[in-house]
Amino acid sequence: MCSPIVMAEVDRVIADRRRFLKSAVGSCAAAAGLGASTVAAAETPRPAPGYRPPTTFSRTVDLTHTLTPDFPAWFSEGEDIMGRTAPASLTLDDEFVIDEETPFALKKVSYWEHVGTHVDAASHCSHGSSVDEIPPEQLVSPLVVIDIRAEAAEDPLAQVTPEHIRKWEALHGLLPPCCFVAMNSGWADKVHDRKAFFASEDLGDGRVVSRQPAFHPDTATMLLEDRDVVGLGVDTLSFDNTRSNGLDVHLIWLPENRWGVENLKDLSKVPEAGATIIVGAPKFKGGTGGPARVLALV
Amino acid sequence: MCSPIVMAEVDRVIADRRRFLKSAVGSCAAAAGLGASTVAAAETPRPAPGYRPPTTFSRTVDLTHTLTPDFPAWFSEGEDIMGRTAPASLTLDDEFVIDEETPFALKKVSYWEHVGTHVDAASHCSHGSSVDEIPPEQLVSPLVVIDIRAEAAEDPLAQVTPEHIRKWEALHGLLPPCCFVAMNSGWADKVHDRKAFFASEDLGDGRVVSRQPAFHPDTATMLLEDRDVVGLGVDTLSFDNTRSNGLDVHLIWLPENRWGVENLKDLSKVPEAGATIIVGAPKFKGGTGGPARVLALV
Repeated sequence: MCSPIVMAEVDRVIADRRRFLKSAVGSCAAAAGLGASTVAAAETPRPAPGYRPPTTFSRTVDLTHTLTPDFPAWFSEGEDIMGRTAPASLTLDDEFVIDEETPFALKKVSYWEHVGTHVDAASHCSHGSSVDEIPPEQLVSPLVVIDIRAEAAEDPLAQVTPEHIRKWEALHGLLPPCCFVAMNSGWADKVHDRKAFFASEDLGDGRVVSRQPAFHPDTATMLLEDRDVVGLGVDTLSFDNTRSNGLDVHLIWLPENRWGVENLKDLSKVPEAGATIIVGAPKFKGGTGGPARVLALV
Repeated sequence: MCSPIVMAEVDRVIADRRRFLKSAVGSCAAAAGLGASTVAAAETPRPAPGYRPPTTFSRTVDLTHTLTPDFPAWFSEGEDIMGRTAPASLTLDDEFVIDEETPFALKKVSYWEHVGTHVDAASHCSHGSSVDEIPPEQLVSPLVVIDIRAEAAEDPLAQVTPEHIRKWEALHGLLPPCCFVAMNSGWADKVHDRKAFFASEDLGDGRVVSRQPAFHPDTATMLLEDRDVVGLGVDTLSFDNTRSNGLDVHLIWLPENRWGVENLKDLSKVPEAGATIIVGAPKFKGGTGGPARVLALV
């Protein structure tokens, strides 16, 4: 689809961008005081930190699964997790129900944080920022959708590679500043088929891994070092395909004070370029992430 | 501030608007299938249901308090609530912490739903829609801020009256379709002074009530019957000042399949007209509300 000339031009512009990021005050990460390893003092005038051109929208798309106690969770009740027995991933208990004497209804809600459509904060896998510390301006970001549905239908181990990013850029231009990059693998459609959604494989040596579409670790490195990306999104349980990567994408991305969202849905209802994502991240003090309401503005 | 001529014109336009709402398919409530008591079949062509002109923004403001276990809650630990002993309103327990053997951290979160900056869904006080059933397009709405800080500083029982709405309209035009109306009373600044924030009064007859700014019940009725409003917002614990109203505003507003947000903050950082509110409502199945991430786009 992309001629060698187009790809060469993309590479040239990217090399310029890389030099810019390495010396920028104009990047989103710099504006938020993040990614100190990749930014330094500017030598030439740049746009004010955090500046963004006005954005326009006229339509809302909900990217959030309805969360029920039987939603497939990384930690299932009774499972052994690092020597701990996992509780139910989510409980919703009626504490008050409306009747002749009670004018209100109210539930008790309990969960382990990483359930449903949820945020992974940097502190989930590092000593970085907790979910309440994510800069609010990062929660409203240009949404980049990488569509790998065709490949994932053939191979559950399909991954978002640097090549996918370059192909997107050949069509739409460089990734916009402070963007959120989401994988659309079609996996969200399997959410009501627990076995297919988990796609577990028992390796026979005590390890059970997942065979699901994911980001490739090289892509996480590329987006960290050479682009200006605030968050990653997937329509699966995890950024990582543990069969191929272990936790590599988590361990590359999150310790750099980046964050992301797992279990997105309906990414096919938004354009690949031009939408804005709103991540209604929970704001519990010190949280490592947790269920979020995620919307797209188109 | 508003001349009799301006107010007369506002009243005339409102009377027109009321006739429109009573026969509209163009209202937000009609588009979402809500408020059946106030809408009927259209007789003349109208904009498509749910149509909204494009909206522009360039800045994000966080309207959400950081939620900690000691955040002032309607239900405090050990308190008798309708014959039940209230648990802690929120607990955050470390289930996993990062160490040499554990590559991730994760908390268990438990709460009674109506804590922190949170949604009240219709089902909190009626058999109406639960929080997951709020139409997503209502979660992104024009934000109308009614500033009663000066009055609330003099009198904690200050309320948003129909007159406040008419004064806002004299300055900015009729409330926009599908809008969210928020009271800015300055009360959010008291959140770290538990006693001042609660403003409780013991009536000596077994009842303890709150003396805090709120919506007047007549305003709830006006906004329900004569305007096109999806949600109410307050920077206090409750839409109601229980000293003056009991639960009247809740019981007028929510049973009409409307909803709202309590404990907003930083409403002084957004304009009175022209901003957009994003309510990152939780999406637990059947929830009566709960902690939300609320942002404004300016």
